[in-house]
Amino acid sequence: MSKFWSPAIRSLVPYTPGEQPKVLNLIKLNTNENPYPPAPAVTNAIREFDTSRLRLYPDPDASILKQGLAEYHKIDKSQVFVGNGSDEVLALAFMAFFRHGKPLSMPETTYSFYEVYCDLLNIEARKIPLNANFEINLDDYTSENTGIIFANPNAPTGIAIGLDEIETLLKRNTETLVLVDEAYVDFGARSAISLINQYPNLLVSHTFSKSRSLAGMRVGCAFGHPELIAGLERVKNSFNSYPLDMLAIATATESLKDETYFQATCQRIKSTRDHASSALVDLGFNVLPSAANFIFASHPKYDAKELMQYLRDKNILVRHFTRAGIDQFLRITIGTDVEMSELINALKARID
Amino acid sequence: MSKFWSPAIRSLVPYTPGEQPKVLNLIKLNTNENPYPPAPAVTNAIREFDTSRLRLYPDPDASILKQGLAEYHKIDKSQVFVGNGSDEVLALAFMAFFRHGKPLSMPETTYSFYEVYCDLLNIEARKIPLNANFEINLDDYTSENTGIIFANPNAPTGIAIGLDEIETLLKRNTETLVLVDEAYVDFGARSAISLINQYPNLLVSHTFSKSRSLAGMRVGCAFGHPELIAGLERVKNSFNSYPLDMLAIATATESLKDETYFQATCQRIKSTRDHASSALVDLGFNVLPSAANFIFASHPKYDAKELMQYLRDKNILVRHFTRAGIDQFLRITIGTDVEMSELINALKARID
Repeated sequence: MSKFWSPAIRSLVPYTPGEQPKVLNLIKLNTNENPYPPAPAVTNAIREFDTSRLRLYPDPDASILKQGLAEYHKIDKSQVFVGNGSDEVLALAFMAFFRHGKPLSMPETTYSFYEVYCDLLNIEARKIPLNANFEINLDDYTSENTGIIFANPNAPTGIAIGLDEIETLLKRNTETLVLVDEAYVDFGARSAISLINQYPNLLVSHTFSKSRSLAGMRVGCAFGHPELIAGLERVKNSFNSYPLDMLAIATATESLKDETYFQATCQRIKSTRDHASSALVDLGFNVLPSAANFIFASHPKYDAKELMQYLRDKNILVRHFTRAGIDQFLRITIGTDVEMSELINALKARID
Repeated sequence: MSKFWSPAIRSLVPYTPGEQPKVLNLIKLNTNENPYPPAPAVTNAIREFDTSRLRLYPDPDASILKQGLAEYHKIDKSQVFVGNGSDEVLALAFMAFFRHGKPLSMPETTYSFYEVYCDLLNIEARKIPLNANFEINLDDYTSENTGIIFANPNAPTGIAIGLDEIETLLKRNTETLVLVDEAYVDFGARSAISLINQYPNLLVSHTFSKSRSLAGMRVGCAFGHPELIAGLERVKNSFNSYPLDMLAIATATESLKDETYFQATCQRIKSTRDHASSALVDLGFNVLPSAANFIFASHPKYDAKELMQYLRDKNILVRHFTRAGIDQFLRITIGTDVEMSELINALKARID
């Protein structure tokens, strides 16, 4: 603690990202990374990049990427925002839309960064419990609010909700923004982007980190009514004019062009997920139905933290959260078939 | 304007970066970019990068870059912070240190983003006029404050102040932070990094965009007491855990290793600057003494905005600010010798 710290930051509890170990030969199933490399076009974009251009500033609007996203999702460029990973996009959205002096409604169990943004920006978080099946029930989101945010599929449960439920919420909650964080949508949920033309109160965020294997490049985006995008641009341009570097813009733009690779990779992960889920069920695990690139599983007879430590000793990393209500679960990222087999075999040896 | 915008953002006036034109064949002297490419090692780092790693998150701490900066400046890694361009570093510093409920003291004429951060974060800006020679006089910075910020060399004047003056200020202003923005320091001023071990109230920010020709990669950094760095990390980790992508970390780290190239490039720009300044003086311009990679010049007989437009028509971009007090100046980035000759020739044709 330093006297130079602004009072508001003294009590901050920053977000804790999953471990990024420096040792090699680990099976890393702890941060929901894609086990497959980005599309080959990404490598070409990097290999062929004219590095003498790096002396210049990038396009602050990242127009080529916005245009690519607009075409991909069949919307207008004015409905697209891009930023330095979806974390930055979310942070800017919290600044732009969630400071109306009322609580922000969010699931009690969800991406834990939402709470951190609230803390940073002095927004009260109203946490609404999941139901007994660990599902978000949007009928519970009826209180006056400064906005509503949830992830779909939700994290770390992996459970998705349907567009009909989201549409019902949008029709009811017309005075404040509903932000649907679709970081994992490509692994099995339906995107609410199809609703943005009808609902000016809807913002949808995506990331290139998961389904497009570009976590290393830090690119996220959001979709909504042009007035929402304009609000995000105001905050972004009051904070950092050029959050996306030239190579981030180039690689993300290229990754959108190889739909065959993209679909094949997502399909492979979904297929591995379904096999791994069955294998875990066979071992006695309770596995929540996942529409994401991870599974959330608990075992009635084995303590989750101990299992996590046991796997760690076998060089297999999975994530464990100490929060009450989910502290008997492991969040296991879907790796390759080989990696998942090693995980299952390690667990078999333990669980008998 | 949208009802969904947080009230605090409705009156924001975002920063306006210099034009990044999409047409080619312009002589671009408007955004203080380096006319020379980054060090050859940067190109190698990009060419040799294993793109399959992009599926993984980068090191959130960017340790290799911090370590490189620590060794370069002969300080400890705990005294180094890195971010997505010095604009992001400054934004985070404003959040971390300048919200003590008093005004932030800054020069009336300086980098205009400081004011924008104040606006975004609800900090009162106390603007202290330059003296008659357009110099910062730190003896004027005596009022109670939430902190003090200035650029050295200052922008857009290019004028540097000495370390002795900064040290006097640090001895006097011990209760709040003094932030010295050294974006242009490598072109002719002395860095205050040499003072951070003695003064826990000093934070110094740098950028890789200017002297290291990496504007396209978005890397900035700050140096100070470990407790100041810890404050920055708290805010950063409550906003965006991974602001630097893998290629930004790799290229910035490599650029630190070629000191010969770095010194030669800076020297070349300084030499071109001195020749261009003389030529402008010969044309009747009043040229402020620059320690930066740009010059700030006015002509007693020609309106600055008209000259800017005249040069624009000749495909030469320079920057003009409409702010009172400096609206008769042009800010001219130092390009190559050839580019500066073209500028001088164009002005010769207009003047006399």
